[in-house]
Amino acid sequence: MKEIESLFETYKNAVFQKDVEAFLSIFDEHVRIFDMWEWTYEGLVSWREMVKGWFGSLGTERVVVTFDEVQVEAAGGMAVASAYVRFAAISEQGEELRYLQNRLTWVAQQKGGVWKIIHEHTSGPVDGETMKVIMKR
Amino acid sequence: MKEIESLFETYKNAVFQKDVEAFLSIFDEHVRIFDMWEWTYEGLVSWREMVKGWFGSLGTERVVVTFDEVQVEAAGGMAVASAYVRFAAISEQGEELRYLQNRLTWVAQQKGGVWKIIHEHTSGPVDGETMKVIMKR
Repeated sequence: MKEIESLFETYKNAVFQKDVEAFLSIFDEHVRIFDMWEWTYEGLVSWREMVKGWFGSLGTERVVVTFDEVQVEAAGGMAVASAYVRFAAISEQGEELRYLQNRLTWVAQQKGGVWKIIHEHTSGPVDGETMKVIMKR
Repeated sequence: MKEIESLFETYKNAVFQKDVEAFLSIFDEHVRIFDMWEWTYEGLVSWREMVKGWFGSLGTERVVVTFDEVQVEAAGGMAVASAYVRFAAISEQGEELRYLQNRLTWVAQQKGGVWKIIHEHTSGPVDGETMKVIMKR
């Protein structure tokens, strides 16, 4: 689905550019986010604070996002995508410093001709012995 | 949405009864599951092994499942639900022994008049200091 591919592209570019407004442009005002690091963000106001904090914390590093094994299902103005996401930290010299991976689910709806994400769920699986999250596949 | 409510009911009852077939009846043959404890289960064959292992490990205990703050969106034969799930372990005497909570996303599709879950994502958020999963809201 072209429309969902464009959400992935916008996400990648916005993160690489640390562009808060471009990042937020693909999310619905009432988005519900089950985030890797927080129980939930309900709505764009709190999500904006998260994004500003994230991009602001990066210093001179940039983040390269890659989506793998994407599956998309769509019906009647709604689309769902699931994928693995790789976040790589890149130095000013373009060297990869470290990375982590997680699982992503997106639910998008077409609203006034534009696709917006109404639900995001990101996470890593848990090691049952240590109860720590696993960050690499 | 009545159909999604019925998936929640079947899930709860199947877990309480430790009924593997009833549990699996709401999942699609090609379901993709991003699980709390595993990166992924792709398809019913591996999901069946998980469920058999889970129910078989319970001994005389039972598990009472509760769904909270459920949100449902539906369009054209597809439905998405997000919720918090509470899993409580109950002794033979009906006493609650312990519980944990996580986040749940379900994507269901109507196939031949029957709703089947084609994607599930369950997780807890991660404490950024300890990297341990948080199991209680």
